[in-house]
Amino acid sequence: MTTKPTVAVVLSGCGVFDGTEIHEAVLTLLALDRQGAAYQCFAPDVQQHHVVDHLSGNETGETRNVLVESARIARGKIRDLAGFDAQRYDALIFPGGFGAAKNRSSVAADGPDATIQPDVEAAIRAMRAAGKPIGALCISPVLLARVLGDVEVTIGDDAGTASAIEQMGGTHRPATHGEVVVDTANKVATTPCYMLDATVGQIADGAHNVVAAVLGMIGR
Amino acid sequence: MTTKPTVAVVLSGCGVFDGTEIHEAVLTLLALDRQGAAYQCFAPDVQQHHVVDHLSGNETGETRNVLVESARIARGKIRDLAGFDAQRYDALIFPGGFGAAKNRSSVAADGPDATIQPDVEAAIRAMRAAGKPIGALCISPVLLARVLGDVEVTIGDDAGTASAIEQMGGTHRPATHGEVVVDTANKVATTPCYMLDATVGQIADGAHNVVAAVLGMIGR
Repeated sequence: MTTKPTVAVVLSGCGVFDGTEIHEAVLTLLALDRQGAAYQCFAPDVQQHHVVDHLSGNETGETRNVLVESARIARGKIRDLAGFDAQRYDALIFPGGFGAAKNRSSVAADGPDATIQPDVEAAIRAMRAAGKPIGALCISPVLLARVLGDVEVTIGDDAGTASAIEQMGGTHRPATHGEVVVDTANKVATTPCYMLDATVGQIADGAHNVVAAVLGMIGR
Repeated sequence: MTTKPTVAVVLSGCGVFDGTEIHEAVLTLLALDRQGAAYQCFAPDVQQHHVVDHLSGNETGETRNVLVESARIARGKIRDLAGFDAQRYDALIFPGGFGAAKNRSSVAADGPDATIQPDVEAAIRAMRAAGKPIGALCISPVLLARVLGDVEVTIGDDAGTASAIEQMGGTHRPATHGEVVVDTANKVATTPCYMLDATVGQIADGAHNVVAAVLGMIGR
């Protein structure tokens, strides 16, 4: 590469229980910056599946917008995923959090029969068609299995989620803290992060390693 | 120290424009973990000054609670600052974001005449009385000047904020990315972070360095 790679990071709200897992998102951005990549955040302009009070764990009855809440993590510098152009980005990364299974897809409710939010599915398909790498953290690898089918990923060691991935046509490989499963044929790199009981330092390790794997597949 | 130090981290919501700056908060937690400290997040149980749409920059008219929104950054593991006990913690750290000037104090509206949220003021005074170190990032050093008066801090190079600090009885020292101003007499360490136009990597540097300075003052 002669120019700095630019990576699209897709968020799904702001908070582990109803949106993007905040530590995973910030540490993905940090890993990209530390490893010499530029980034642009995106999120779909849709209502959240629900809003969870992160202190009590209860639903609040509020309505919040995924793009607007994701803008908190991106400090306002974010774009509607509906306008995503695969030609402008070298790679695509999905941090985790329940938002991936509630807002970017219906995995939380529907498991292997989940539907994927159309802008998310279009972005994954466009990057795949362009032969560009995709990274995913935590629960987000499930989305890649649902869209791409025959892909090798990890979500750590959760048996139910691993089974859903296999039913979608994917292959699940167990992994522990900081480990990355790379499917070189599909140019997909995944890591468990908070799908395991982890420290914030272990999340930083996982984010660093998955970003390194993704950047290493650019242009290959 | 024979045991792992435990640091209280005080949040003020979730989002740079109406709460805690998310990158500064997460990278403070990461710095603590990387440097061998445990942490406990706190926030005051009060309504936010207002809610800002981080995509448009406009107020939304919603009401949100500071403790509940801060819980998003803390993944639910957070305590009401009203119950803070200085005897149980070795140091206190305040990440930045406008919430420090809107929810933890009235600095944004009242400048040098700002009032400080009572639980925040009590925590600062209790740690000072116990001779324990306090760290602050971004705009948060202003709170320390307002409560402690004659203290040496940095908020970077913003002339208006520096002037407010001086009017509060403090001394402002200019600093750039990653630099820390340490007031050894008062055991206070501060760094500019997003008070400067910074990258997320520069925020990680600032958070790392201010945490190192704070941990280095424990027990001295």
